[in-house]
Amino acid sequence: MHAVIARDQPDTAVVDLTHQIPPHDVRSGSLTLWRAAPWLVPGVILAVVDPGVATSRRAVAVEVAGADAALVGPDNGLLLPAALRLGSITAAVALEDGGGTFAGRDVFAPAAARLAAGAHVHHLGRPLDPATLAGEAVPEPVPDGPGLRAEVLWIDRFGNAQLNAAPSASFTSFTTGGTSHPVRTVRAFADLEPGEVGLVIDSYGLLAIALREASASAHLGLSPGQPVFLTR
Amino acid sequence: MHAVIARDQPDTAVVDLTHQIPPHDVRSGSLTLWRAAPWLVPGVILAVVDPGVATSRRAVAVEVAGADAALVGPDNGLLLPAALRLGSITAAVALEDGGGTFAGRDVFAPAAARLAAGAHVHHLGRPLDPATLAGEAVPEPVPDGPGLRAEVLWIDRFGNAQLNAAPSASFTSFTTGGTSHPVRTVRAFADLEPGEVGLVIDSYGLLAIALREASASAHLGLSPGQPVFLTR
Amino acid sequence: MHAVIARDQPDTAVVDLTHQIPPHDVRSGSLTLWRAAPWLVPGVILAVVDPGVATSRRAVAVEVAGADAALVGPDNGLLLPAALRLGSITAAVALEDGGGTFAGRDVFAPAAARLAAGAHVHHLGRPLDPATLAGEAVPEPVPDGPGLRAEVLWIDRFGNAQLNAAPSASFTSFTTGGTSHPVRTVRAFADLEPGEVGLVIDSYGLLAIALREASASAHLGLSPGQPVFLTR
Repeated sequence: MHAVIARDQPDTAVVDLTHQIPPHDVRSGSLTLWRAAPWLVPGVILAVVDPGVATSRRAVAVEVAGADAALVGPDNGLLLPAALRLGSITAAVALEDGGGTFAGRDVFAPAAARLAAGAHVHHLGRPLDPATLAGEAVPEPVPDGPGLRAEVLWIDRFGNAQLNAAPSASFTSFTTGGTSHPVRTVRAFADLEPGEVGLVIDSYGLLAIALREASASAHLGLSPGQPVFLTR
Repeated sequence: MHAVIARDQPDTAVVDLTHQIPPHDVRSGSLTLWRAAPWLVPGVILAVVDPGVATSRRAVAVEVAGADAALVGPDNGLLLPAALRLGSITAAVALEDGGGTFAGRDVFAPAAARLAAGAHVHHLGRPLDPATLAGEAVPEPVPDGPGLRAEVLWIDRFGNAQLNAAPSASFTSFTTGGTSHPVRTVRAFADLEPGEVGLVIDSYGLLAIALREASASAHLGLSPGQPVFLTR
Repeated sequence: MHAVIARDQPDTAVVDLTHQIPPHDVRSGSLTLWRAAPWLVPGVILAVVDPGVATSRRAVAVEVAGADAALVGPDNGLLLPAALRLGSITAAVALEDGGGTFAGRDVFAPAAARLAAGAHVHHLGRPLDPATLAGEAVPEPVPDGPGLRAEVLWIDRFGNAQLNAAPSASFTSFTTGGTSHPVRTVRAFADLEPGEVGLVIDSYGLLAIALREASASAHLGLSPGQPVFLTR
């Protein structure tokens, strides 16, 4: 894919965001893009986690208003959280996809190179209704009295559970699975005592339930999508 | 190596093809280059899998006619399959090699930077006879009556066995190790039924013997170099 | 971090030195930089191994005279060995650090981008006394009669023990842990016989105690910092 972009648009700088999404894990890929998106624009975002490659899933390019941004990839939910975080989708097209096994190289990389060269999304394929794009926005936390209804987005490899909530207040406890946990909100994992469960403000400005030097998710039985109620 | 190229030729775009060749596995490296070569030209291909570094093996640069391509690396068979896939070799030289342990940085990267800047291969060292270069082309499959004599090139980490054969016909069986296997040829791994052995058209347009959600090579006892007879 | 640099200074070439420093291993990171530093200048060196991120450790930028070099990173000893190898430190500043968890992206990458654009270190923060920077130079070996007092810098993943000594003489033995080992000094690991302990001139021109096809460090009980006396 790099070689195709370098051939088509030699002056385009290409940044690798990650090569460590587990195979076929569209949800993990979509959240990784969603977290990083604000730092990737203006620019063209090309993403491939594509278990349905060479099937009938659509290949798409999406334009986001106001962010000078376009996203290219499979229409399987991978792109939508990042696109909706960046703004409203103002155009979307289905790319011509010959159905080969290496769409990243043969379909997505050439499309991204054209966008990087200044082409508009509507030059790349036939228009489609953005409302038909697969996937949805990352859920927003919901204020509820003095608290916040959040959920676990993602468990990282250390067992920290990232929530869909920013530290909008100084939370002093969270409740999940019927149990309430009094906690401190801290700025660094190192600020927790050994064995202490707490809320850490992570690299993306979101709260994560963490347990110093151990897996909070294993200890508390947390999994992605699980509701967490934060209270001040 | 990147830093040396950036120092010598700051405007040259460098694409990493892979850093995941097993240590000392020249055959794996040569096949990786061979598969990717058509997407890497025009350009300079620098490859280092070099178990004989700091011994008497030659360091070489090779020019391939008609492809606007040059290859640089150790003369141990790593470069030849890709070079011969790209065209006929029209010039080859032995690079000056002081015999250090890090020839990639000290010999090959500076040579590649000079080629990227427009130098010709014959400016880089003393000419050598291309016929003396180590290695050989990847074997072509041989038509035999209604079938095709192919072989296993490579087993990937999932146990799929890549053959040296493109889907030139709609094959309906293959024979290897004295046993015939009726199969379907499909475009995606997902098109196989669980437990079904089949021929999949892979990312490079070649056929691979695959077993959905399991290792075809372990199941059938396949290994690199093993003959496979494909029939329609 | 790449995306921030590309956004601030799109024409700056960025080379990844490594992403394989063990988490929090400042010593390993500092030695990796120290070994590679001569090939990274002129240029801006940005390094992050930062277990104290979001605590009171300083974020710094350092200018090295005569090498057209600047280094940016946490003030925890990571930068000093490389800086002192490149020359004397002529200016150092403390960067504004808001105390977030992702200083690499939010503090160090923007500072490196400004340096790459031509800013001077003293434009980036408040001056500090270079003598207060954390860390120290990699120890030099000390001549002692006909021999050299060296030490183990680092054990690599194969168990080779890199010393802080260049092959300044043809050493024929080394003594460590009270035991003397007669050895050959060779140019390649492949020059050792199977089972032979020897001194190999490594990729950075330093001597390493190696044991062909096995771990010299496990066999001899070597660890970082351990004294080794080399004799001719």
